[in-house]
Amino acid sequence: MRALVYRNARLVLDRTYPMPALVDGEALIRVTHAGICNTDLEIVRGYMGFQGVLGHEFVGVVEEIYGDVAQERYGHLVGKRVVGEINAACYRPDCWYCQRGAPTHCPHRTTLGIVNRDGAFADHLMLPVENVHPVPDNVSDEEAVFVEPLAANFEILEQVHVKPTDSVVVLGDGKMGQLAAQVMGLVSCEVMMVGKYSEKLILAEKRGVHTYLLDDAERFVLEIGRRVDLVIECSGSAQGLEMALRLVRARGTLILKSTVSEKSLLYLAPIVIDEIRVQGSRCGPFAPALKALSQKLVDVRPLISSCYKLDEGLTAYKHTLQKGVVKLPVQV
Amino acid sequence: MRALVYRNARLVLDRTYPMPALVDGEALIRVTHAGICNTDLEIVRGYMGFQGVLGHEFVGVVEEIYGDVAQERYGHLVGKRVVGEINAACYRPDCWYCQRGAPTHCPHRTTLGIVNRDGAFADHLMLPVENVHPVPDNVSDEEAVFVEPLAANFEILEQVHVKPTDSVVVLGDGKMGQLAAQVMGLVSCEVMMVGKYSEKLILAEKRGVHTYLLDDAERFVLEIGRRVDLVIECSGSAQGLEMALRLVRARGTLILKSTVSEKSLLYLAPIVIDEIRVQGSRCGPFAPALKALSQKLVDVRPLISSCYKLDEGLTAYKHTLQKGVVKLPVQV
Repeated sequence: MRALVYRNARLVLDRTYPMPALVDGEALIRVTHAGICNTDLEIVRGYMGFQGVLGHEFVGVVEEIYGDVAQERYGHLVGKRVVGEINAACYRPDCWYCQRGAPTHCPHRTTLGIVNRDGAFADHLMLPVENVHPVPDNVSDEEAVFVEPLAANFEILEQVHVKPTDSVVVLGDGKMGQLAAQVMGLVSCEVMMVGKYSEKLILAEKRGVHTYLLDDAERFVLEIGRRVDLVIECSGSAQGLEMALRLVRARGTLILKSTVSEKSLLYLAPIVIDEIRVQGSRCGPFAPALKALSQKLVDVRPLISSCYKLDEGLTAYKHTLQKGVVKLPVQV
Repeated sequence: MRALVYRNARLVLDRTYPMPALVDGEALIRVTHAGICNTDLEIVRGYMGFQGVLGHEFVGVVEEIYGDVAQERYGHLVGKRVVGEINAACYRPDCWYCQRGAPTHCPHRTTLGIVNRDGAFADHLMLPVENVHPVPDNVSDEEAVFVEPLAANFEILEQVHVKPTDSVVVLGDGKMGQLAAQVMGLVSCEVMMVGKYSEKLILAEKRGVHTYLLDDAERFVLEIGRRVDLVIECSGSAQGLEMALRLVRARGTLILKSTVSEKSLLYLAPIVIDEIRVQGSRCGPFAPALKALSQKLVDVRPLISSCYKLDEGLTAYKHTLQKGVVKLPVQV
């Protein structure tokens, strides 16, 4: 099959990549669309030391389910349009995380296109049947590609009680920042965004978000002051983290969404003195994300920059690295 | 009056220091005992840029209350043995923190012996009447000195839901570490401590805490693994923070208690990937601390190394800097 593969520090389009190994309890999925994520770009910079097929945001069609038990319980999924949770957990009886409803933290997990499992920029992929979610008919393929990162932003509402009277600042105007702003907006609280690109900020403005260019950040910080209840760091820069600590109020919360590979020099005393909660946040629940898309609570369509065939995958990667590109699905 | 004063980068015993200015709504307290805290030592190293009388852990007797309203409402405190909350808030109607039950975060606050208010190593101090708490008869002066740091550890139970089935590691065997271990032990959960000094660790051992010498820390980390629900960082060292992140489980909590003046180089990706909560923690509620002492739920007496007269204050400071000293009240 065709696959966009990262190996030996190079990204290549392999037209003769082997089909995924068929495993009991897993579904073989024919990928129809996949999205490029910042993590993919980080992997190409050496993050996680991953080698293999990239990509973890996708929509596809279940072609087959392997194993008698899985077939019996999940046979109805064959032929269905689906998205899939990216962490494949062990679910062993002696796994602390799996047995406590936290399979995304299973220490034995593989992760689609990130850790020990080939990803979605290929004709086919395999995922455990438990990870697979049918996509409602009124959600297009292009929209469904956003389910994974959208779920990661619903994770914030799982972790922190965000109140309608809260003020929220999103740092970063990329895909994660845009989705964070939309999800926080559902609580009807005050949402602000600081970003680098006016063409991205305008997308958030249209959703009622007050936006500020990073060039004006100093003025913004002085104007707003340390009064923000929740700061969501999606910029992935050391500068973002520093700004976050200048905005968040005492006893406020700072959500860390970016996984960056470098160490950051942090002055911790203000976190202690002001009793700040710094909360790491990663993958989230798919069901609310699918519901939000189906109910049109969020609108991801303006976030799509362009669409490429898998054969043009390398060009798509180069495009993503350009300024102003929020997100682009790669059509297989 | 006599006062132990930090000024022009020197700690001096001043026998002709002026009495505190008498302010409406405040109580004049004659100090009977005061404790030396790590923050006092940090101040002498330049932390907070404070100049003035040091000390914020004390017990004393109310001599007078100033202002008609205060006298009417708090007149019964005159002659009483009291401890005092150290943050003097503004309580203005337009103060966000004061009006939301968070006076310890009032941006206009002064802090006894730390920010813009002379402290407890003196014959007298002044504090707002709202900050003053009578000490139950069955709590000695020596014990009462521990109310402030004990309250700071009850703050952890205000911030985080610590469960009886949780495992807790306290990093640091000093006063804060000892009090943290005792307070966490009240929940009857598994408590472990890593510290530098066997003579301090033995104090925790006697309270049912499993203790480990820092020299064996590598073995401890490998043995325990990343399974700890709650790590409380009281060591104040960069090494402690790194160890904390190697012990805390995914979705676990790391409490930061130490205020250190340097920046720390932190690798943030694990906090995101493992969705760790890093929670700064400072001052806490006095009432539960007083109750715990009165009910003998905690025992601070073994934590007292020695007792000095105020005239010997400089010697007391030198003693505190020695190895194995947990805590020493200075008798005025």
